Amino acid sequence: MKNEESLSIEKIVLVGAGNVATHLGTALCDAGYAVVQVFSRTGESASALAEKLGCPYTTDISRIVPDAGLYIVSVKDSVLAEVVPPLVRRNPEALFVHTAGSMPMDVWKGEAHRYGVLYPMQTFSKGRAVDFTAVPFFIEGSGEEEAGALRALAERIGGHAYEATSEQRRYLHIAAVFACNFTNHMYALAHRLLAAHGLPFEAMLPLIDETARKVHELPPAEAQTGPARRYDGNVIGKHLEMLAGEPRLAELYEKISRSIHEEDKSQLIHKLK
Amino acid sequence: MKNEESLSIEKIVLVGAGNVATHLGTALCDAGYAVVQVFSRTGESASALAEKLGCPYTTDISRIVPDAGLYIVSVKDSVLAEVVPPLVRRNPEALFVHTAGSMPMDVWKGEAHRYGVLYPMQTFSKGRAVDFTAVPFFIEGSGEEEAGALRALAERIGGHAYEATSEQRRYLHIAAVFACNFTNHMYALAHRLLAAHGLPFEAMLPLIDETARKVHELPPAEAQTGPARRYDGNVIGKHLEMLAGEPRLAELYEKISRSIHEEDKSQLIHKLK
Repeated sequence: MKNEESLSIEKIVLVGAGNVATHLGTALCDAGYAVVQVFSRTGESASALAEKLGCPYTTDISRIVPDAGLYIVSVKDSVLAEVVPPLVRRNPEALFVHTAGSMPMDVWKGEAHRYGVLYPMQTFSKGRAVDFTAVPFFIEGSGEEEAGALRALAERIGGHAYEATSEQRRYLHIAAVFACNFTNHMYALAHRLLAAHGLPFEAMLPLIDETARKVHELPPAEAQTGPARRYDGNVIGKHLEMLAGEPRLAELYEKISRSIHEEDKSQLIHKLK
Repeated sequence: MKNEESLSIEKIVLVGAGNVATHLGTALCDAGYAVVQVFSRTGESASALAEKLGCPYTTDISRIVPDAGLYIVSVKDSVLAEVVPPLVRRNPEALFVHTAGSMPMDVWKGEAHRYGVLYPMQTFSKGRAVDFTAVPFFIEGSGEEEAGALRALAERIGGHAYEATSEQRRYLHIAAVFACNFTNHMYALAHRLLAAHGLPFEAMLPLIDETARKVHELPPAEAQTGPARRYDGNVIGKHLEMLAGEPRLAELYEKISRSIHEEDKSQLIHKLK
């Protein structure tokens, strides 16, 4: 294994200018990396991010600068494959990574020589700062040198680096969909129910916070409470009646309650074994 | 309206010795209230809580002391109705409250003269301290005096008091089931997926925390991210394939994704109106 220094990734091009690129780019600059160019197909987002980072931008993939050490691609999954060949041609000896949870590392295979994945598992929103000291980065490299360079980068911007194969990362992404996207939807449905009955959503925040805090200490299956855990048919039946005017919510209520109960039973069976 | 002082509720009996009674009892003692007795049908839990609070206990409802000002009932919803008549007979002029989100105040009607509801909307677990300064109490009283006394009690133990009718509280409880119980189940499913693929659940905690923090600043419908929000059929389809061996998880994934998409569409329609 060569010294990590031999893979110089101090000069970075960002390909894509969405939420991930914006937050990652800001963190890279703060950590002393030189972001030398931003590429995006839409001039508006390219120029906005370039201005934020104090660097030039382009909307023409054939004008991406050829002298960077690292090219970080944060584009929609559906666009990634078509970006790869023209991007790699710009500087075939550089290190290329994408930041997509659900895309395999092999999108680079046969195109680039040195490549990998740098997946920051966090939910990024425009206009909301992200504390990278709390961001886990899931890393994969085409070789040990590449993995080592990406680990060093993740740690230098303050994140926590984990190694994960493409296969593991696919399941990680599904797990994140449950723990983040679906959780947020539960909040959204609570918000709507409260608003419909003249109650403030803010009153729900202490409960939301405590629910999140609890799983820092207890496995979530043990932290489970509520009518579905006890399978209190009386409460569940009343709630389903009250949701009769909202068939979509009623169906989710019923399916999730049943799933909690099934999960609880399988935990018990597991313990008895 | 009489002065609140005229309704003396300094001496309290706790009926029930589960998680709510334990945490509430501890907070009441800390705030200087005198918890004078604990009742529970199971001697073990009655004695454990009584010892914790430094007071006597009984397992015989007809031996509940008749000289308290306030009787707080925290028992299973299915048991509440049968506890009411023999309890009220012990001291018909006292204030009686229950702490159940989904039970109406009227369980007391025709039995007690002064009654109400004191619903602490938080998730309580044995062995985990609760910070009552972050607990919203939803209060309802048979009269203004009763409501005022309960508001003063909630604030004295450090909580935030909201008034809510029985009808509002029923929907509040459903909202809490979504925001807490169902959210925790999303964590539990993520936990299981990660464990099955050799990944640490701890890596998911920063995402879980950020998802909760975000809705302090943004309405959850606006904070929504993920493949379902964009309705990325490519990613959703792959995820469903990967969950083929877990039909219950696959069904939830599909239903919740569809609900996110529907919710997003109805938000857009709402904005366009």
